Amino acid sequence: MKLSLAYFTLTLVGSSTAFFTPVPSTLPTSLYSATETTSGVQRNGNFAKLAGGYLFPEIARRRNAFLEKNPDANIISLGIGDTTQPIPPNILKGLLDGVGKLGAKETYSGYGAEQGMAPLREQISKVLYDGLISPDEVFVSDGAKCDIQRLQNMFGSQVRSAVQDPSYPVYVDTSVMMGQTGELNEATKQYDNISYMECNAENGFFPDLENSVRADVVYLCSPNNPTGVAATKEQLENAVRICKERGSILVFDAAYAPFIRTPGVPKSIFEIEGAKDCAIEVNSFSKYAGFTGVRLGWTVVPSSLKFKDGTPVKQDFNRVMTTSFNGASNIVQAGGMACLSPEGMKEITELIDYYLENAKILSDTFTKMGYDVYGGTDAPYIFVGLKGASSWDTFSDILEKAEVVTIPGAGFGPGGEGYLRLSAFAPRESVVEACERLKKVFS
Amino acid sequence: MKLSLAYFTLTLVGSSTAFFTPVPSTLPTSLYSATETTSGVQRNGNFAKLAGGYLFPEIARRRNAFLEKNPDANIISLGIGDTTQPIPPNILKGLLDGVGKLGAKETYSGYGAEQGMAPLREQISKVLYDGLISPDEVFVSDGAKCDIQRLQNMFGSQVRSAVQDPSYPVYVDTSVMMGQTGELNEATKQYDNISYMECNAENGFFPDLENSVRADVVYLCSPNNPTGVAATKEQLENAVRICKERGSILVFDAAYAPFIRTPGVPKSIFEIEGAKDCAIEVNSFSKYAGFTGVRLGWTVVPSSLKFKDGTPVKQDFNRVMTTSFNGASNIVQAGGMACLSPEGMKEITELIDYYLENAKILSDTFTKMGYDVYGGTDAPYIFVGLKGASSWDTFSDILEKAEVVTIPGAGFGPGGEGYLRLSAFAPRESVVEACERLKKVFS
Repeated sequence: MKLSLAYFTLTLVGSSTAFFTPVPSTLPTSLYSATETTSGVQRNGNFAKLAGGYLFPEIARRRNAFLEKNPDANIISLGIGDTTQPIPPNILKGLLDGVGKLGAKETYSGYGAEQGMAPLREQISKVLYDGLISPDEVFVSDGAKCDIQRLQNMFGSQVRSAVQDPSYPVYVDTSVMMGQTGELNEATKQYDNISYMECNAENGFFPDLENSVRADVVYLCSPNNPTGVAATKEQLENAVRICKERGSILVFDAAYAPFIRTPGVPKSIFEIEGAKDCAIEVNSFSKYAGFTGVRLGWTVVPSSLKFKDGTPVKQDFNRVMTTSFNGASNIVQAGGMACLSPEGMKEITELIDYYLENAKILSDTFTKMGYDVYGGTDAPYIFVGLKGASSWDTFSDILEKAEVVTIPGAGFGPGGEGYLRLSAFAPRESVVEACERLKKVFS
Repeated sequence: MKLSLAYFTLTLVGSSTAFFTPVPSTLPTSLYSATETTSGVQRNGNFAKLAGGYLFPEIARRRNAFLEKNPDANIISLGIGDTTQPIPPNILKGLLDGVGKLGAKETYSGYGAEQGMAPLREQISKVLYDGLISPDEVFVSDGAKCDIQRLQNMFGSQVRSAVQDPSYPVYVDTSVMMGQTGELNEATKQYDNISYMECNAENGFFPDLENSVRADVVYLCSPNNPTGVAATKEQLENAVRICKERGSILVFDAAYAPFIRTPGVPKSIFEIEGAKDCAIEVNSFSKYAGFTGVRLGWTVVPSSLKFKDGTPVKQDFNRVMTTSFNGASNIVQAGGMACLSPEGMKEITELIDYYLENAKILSDTFTKMGYDVYGGTDAPYIFVGLKGASSWDTFSDILEKAEVVTIPGAGFGPGGEGYLRLSAFAPRESVVEACERLKKVFS
């Protein structure tokens, strides 16, 4: 009864007058008009700009819809880049020991440094970067995706970003959510005020930075998701040079670096001279230690990288990490230490060998069928040119006829139209079976 | 040499002309002037507003500075609310089993749902909320602090927030970082465009919402950090009524709920009629399962909560979770399942008993010395009135004379001046020893 009365009063007052402002505010309070069914809080307009849901849940939704109609379907997923092989023994032991320590008073630990355990930061610096960057430049986290959001929180709404097109959707989506972009242009499928740098077979899937408009933040991913192509040293030298000339910050996503097998291809942007003055590197244990569900990544912010006013970028990123993050799980960090032991590194190499062999099987299959295939030698993804066919149509076609889940290139941006991404992370037998089914569909 | 040349060109061009804009942009590119030592990217102005570092690293810095000068000091920490007791056997077994599953092909799992494992969402709904909220309203995460940032990312920069003063610093700091506030007023130590709702001994440390200016987002924490006081049912009914009348969204931080022992005191905002139309609840396993370093929390966003335009808040929060988070660690979620088993719940009760007994020892000590003490019966914190003394001075005094780390009330906002927060999370013997030392300092 009391509640109904309150509602009633509210409805009467409506949106025209603020009915309850006993304390004057120095700034005007928002206009609002709560109704019986809504609050009076304005929705963040940036979310309304977002077209559709985040890509991978959308793929899962379509897969589940198919399964509902075809409950007996035997679906093979070559879609999301999700590891399927168990965590090898030495790394697993690291995780188990991490748990074990929490069970005894003498070894128990609670909150750790938000930036990560000192020994892990040291090992990352030493084992993975050969000392190119120092431990205090390493911020350990729960994954690259989360770090990209945290970088965006640091950059704020006033920067202009540039992305490879196609690209991992998180760069664009988080830029939209942060208010850096305008509306989606329905014709081009691009958001205003974000630079889409075309990547296609003609330019080796690496953008022509020289002829792209300047951006404050340039996102590059190598080995690339979704195209599977790793940038050469020359390409990266050029990118660093241009970013330095233009005063851009290069956010380099190296989450697939250990898959690189071609000699001379850089595994870190910090192999490039001058990168410490312009680049941030985002990285992850997910894809090669079987840690997709375990959650461990890191971001390198060099001490020498500065905003225009001279403030070290590291200082603000540290503020983000300490204020809105509480460190990666101590159990998981213990697993990370095990990954970087000689035994762990050997296990990781074996896992990568396994997934790269999968990539080769997929690549060979499509090549033999006469398709142009990219990637797959230095990355766990292959990118197949569809000879002009629509990528969402092909996705649906393959799902229905072969019961295989892939990812349409267009899901990674308008530049991905006409391509299909296939992940090499499925178990070997599934990859082989999927190839058999695909041959039937495409021949 | 090549690099020097690039720098040279850049210096010559200076900030007056954009020297490289081959592709016209629909929007003007930012003005910039990279120099040899900085990028051309403007620092996010919201970060410049932040006064000092995040509170707890600042406390750690002062503690370490003291230790450097006094390397033989035997410091006891009653500062940050960090658990010290080992994880009990049944919960530990849950974590070990979580790891074990990742070592076998049959039980291995990679990416899970970003919103959390279905069985954990179900158990949280059933065991902790007795079905008051449904599993699909639960978003499992890596902790309450991280979720508050994600909520802020959803709210964006245009909302006006209200906080209890004193309060957990993350609400204010993330509001500043998101651009919701103005500058810090040096005189009041308050940021413009954020409402500080006074909480003190006179009002039972619960704000007078009726006489506070309307805000879009109202942060309430009960049992409260830092005051240790739990809100009564009547107070919360009043808060829900006012938030509904005003169309405000109430963000209720219930991270200490299981410490509540006083009958009739609500453990969840959803015990209050009407809360599902106006409230979000942030929660955590950290403090009572020994999970501070393990990282597991959750946020409840009711399906019926809507923005002014009718968009379900849950829809946008789901977009944040799927786009910029990748799920809590699967190992840790397995630990969460064990927490919610009957054996785990029994272990949690024993841990809470232990910490509450610590709180009683601390409370009794200060009471006997003639100080006004608040909290500690339904929360792991006690809040001590300092009889007019400065809280930072008292903090330093206690650190130097007793080698005990506390937290100055002023660290939680200007309203905390004149108080000291003590955490009950230290081991029993340390609490007893700290009390002996404090008696010497204060008498």
